[in-house]
Amino acid sequence: VAVTASSLNGNALAGHGYIGAIDLGGTKILASIAAPDGTIVSRAKKMTRADRGAETVVERMTEAVREAAAEAGIDVRAIVAAGVGAPGPIDTANGVVKQAPNLGWDNFPLRDALSTRLGCPVSVGNDVSVAVLAEHAAGAGRGVRHLVGIWPGTGVGGGMIMDGKLYGGVGDLAGEVGHMTIKAGGPKCGCGGRGHLEALCSRTAIVREIAKMVKRGAKSEITKIAGGNILQATSGDLAKALLRGDKVVMKVLDRASKHLALGIASVANLLNPEMVVLGGGVIEALGDPFVERVTELVRKQPLRAATADLKIVKSQLGDDAGITGAALLARQIQL
Amino acid sequence: VAVTASSLNGNALAGHGYIGAIDLGGTKILASIAAPDGTIVSRAKKMTRADRGAETVVERMTEAVREAAAEAGIDVRAIVAAGVGAPGPIDTANGVVKQAPNLGWDNFPLRDALSTRLGCPVSVGNDVSVAVLAEHAAGAGRGVRHLVGIWPGTGVGGGMIMDGKLYGGVGDLAGEVGHMTIKAGGPKCGCGGRGHLEALCSRTAIVREIAKMVKRGAKSEITKIAGGNILQATSGDLAKALLRGDKVVMKVLDRASKHLALGIASVANLLNPEMVVLGGGVIEALGDPFVERVTELVRKQPLRAATADLKIVKSQLGDDAGITGAALLARQIQL
Repeated sequence: VAVTASSLNGNALAGHGYIGAIDLGGTKILASIAAPDGTIVSRAKKMTRADRGAETVVERMTEAVREAAAEAGIDVRAIVAAGVGAPGPIDTANGVVKQAPNLGWDNFPLRDALSTRLGCPVSVGNDVSVAVLAEHAAGAGRGVRHLVGIWPGTGVGGGMIMDGKLYGGVGDLAGEVGHMTIKAGGPKCGCGGRGHLEALCSRTAIVREIAKMVKRGAKSEITKIAGGNILQATSGDLAKALLRGDKVVMKVLDRASKHLALGIASVANLLNPEMVVLGGGVIEALGDPFVERVTELVRKQPLRAATADLKIVKSQLGDDAGITGAALLARQIQL
Repeated sequence: VAVTASSLNGNALAGHGYIGAIDLGGTKILASIAAPDGTIVSRAKKMTRADRGAETVVERMTEAVREAAAEAGIDVRAIVAAGVGAPGPIDTANGVVKQAPNLGWDNFPLRDALSTRLGCPVSVGNDVSVAVLAEHAAGAGRGVRHLVGIWPGTGVGGGMIMDGKLYGGVGDLAGEVGHMTIKAGGPKCGCGGRGHLEALCSRTAIVREIAKMVKRGAKSEITKIAGGNILQATSGDLAKALLRGDKVVMKVLDRASKHLALGIASVANLLNPEMVVLGGGVIEALGDPFVERVTELVRKQPLRAATADLKIVKSQLGDDAGITGAALLARQIQL
């Protein structure tokens, strides 16, 4: 049995029995098992295959948990509860994914579908909310009472810890930092709005802007790196192009970092958090130098009351934030 | 003794003894007395005279409370506690006004200065925060657990009730909705930033835009209405110009309402409140038609998850929101 001991704070994830934790993405499913002592003892990965329908996705999630259980050397019946971080707005009380364009889901009862297959209680939360929950419990935000997470990737997700607790607002929809207007009349967002943070600094927005410049004649390495189709470039491809000194990518990322800084300053002025945690694909790929540049730009904003002492840090759990948060959700069922 | 019975919810303001409540503005001081049964029984008004220095302002605040007490037929020594809503960021724990450009104050210890003169404990809060507290306790937001107040006037202030309590963030600075960037690279804000909500829909911003258009040759009634100097136009002057069908004022207000709607939608996407309360000079002067227009524009925003059911209402307490909130602060000292 291969046991990958995690460097996480074991206490937050510790509890009675084994936990199944799933990070459900538009492209891939990451499943894991958390042991009673709180360590993540195994992982399994599968493609999501959302194109084959919701039932197939649930079947693949179940399969991924089974594989992770086998890897951990436990019977799947030893799993006492499971948690899922899923994209889009979630009706957490009923475990329903309200709207997930990446999955093509509309009011899909994920909790019940998965609970039937796994034979244990399941809890479902928004993917970024649970990642932020994890950063607060076991990552960069340990002991921080007021924290906002901003997750630029395919979109720009977010989540908030206020007074030490995940904040959901009246309908558990809070945290959509990606749909704050930063540049009225600016580029179109996936939601149809204009100049939203997501339309300015998600990977999708960055890549679209690069493609536009290349179409106009600018020269960039990214076409080659991304295998011909710029729009398919990953965050990792952007990082590679930067390393090669690609001017176009540099310019577009510079603009994105400025807009991200305006978004962070806006959130800080509104909420006066102690810390902003940055995570997600773009941040993981570009790393600390990008976070430091964004921090510099936030500090340059003239209203300094809420930004001068604001801590701006990179996610500590990285790719494990999702499964850690999902495991925390599952532990909460037990409370 | 002239007793003006208030239409407020008496319960929230009721308590032991008489309360002095002060709404401190850059131009005027409004003082009032709240009786043990919670009704506001008298009011007094004075010019602030900030140009004469902080000590003069405190003297005038004290005088205003004395006048209100006389009006209520009580001795000033019968006042058991006093509350103040003051502009700018406040160190509420120490009753210090950190920064109030309108008053020329920098870390002024208002609580102690006023407490010495009045001979009773004093509590100081941000003017808009206490107004929002009042709307929640005794106005438009009674019984609402998650509420955001947006107050366009000379600037654009704000305040938040989350989980039924005023939310201050880590340094009690939360609520600066006026300094969220709505239009990156847009008009300059008083704080030095660009495209902040305050730079787009405060009275100051609206009047500046009108003046610019008139300078370029556009014809407007506002010059006459404001007595020659457009930059001195009040929110009431804007309302008068609208009534006369002034096209320039109409156009600028239309733009301001669009930006205000984007600000409301941003806040809703981030915080998912049940209600947004609009107050402040611009809202009081332009009234329900303006609030209805802004609401229409919010509903047109494509991401509807957090805005479709959002209640957008006008402040119920109007000019009394400030003193009501200040009285609530004072009652909290007693708890």
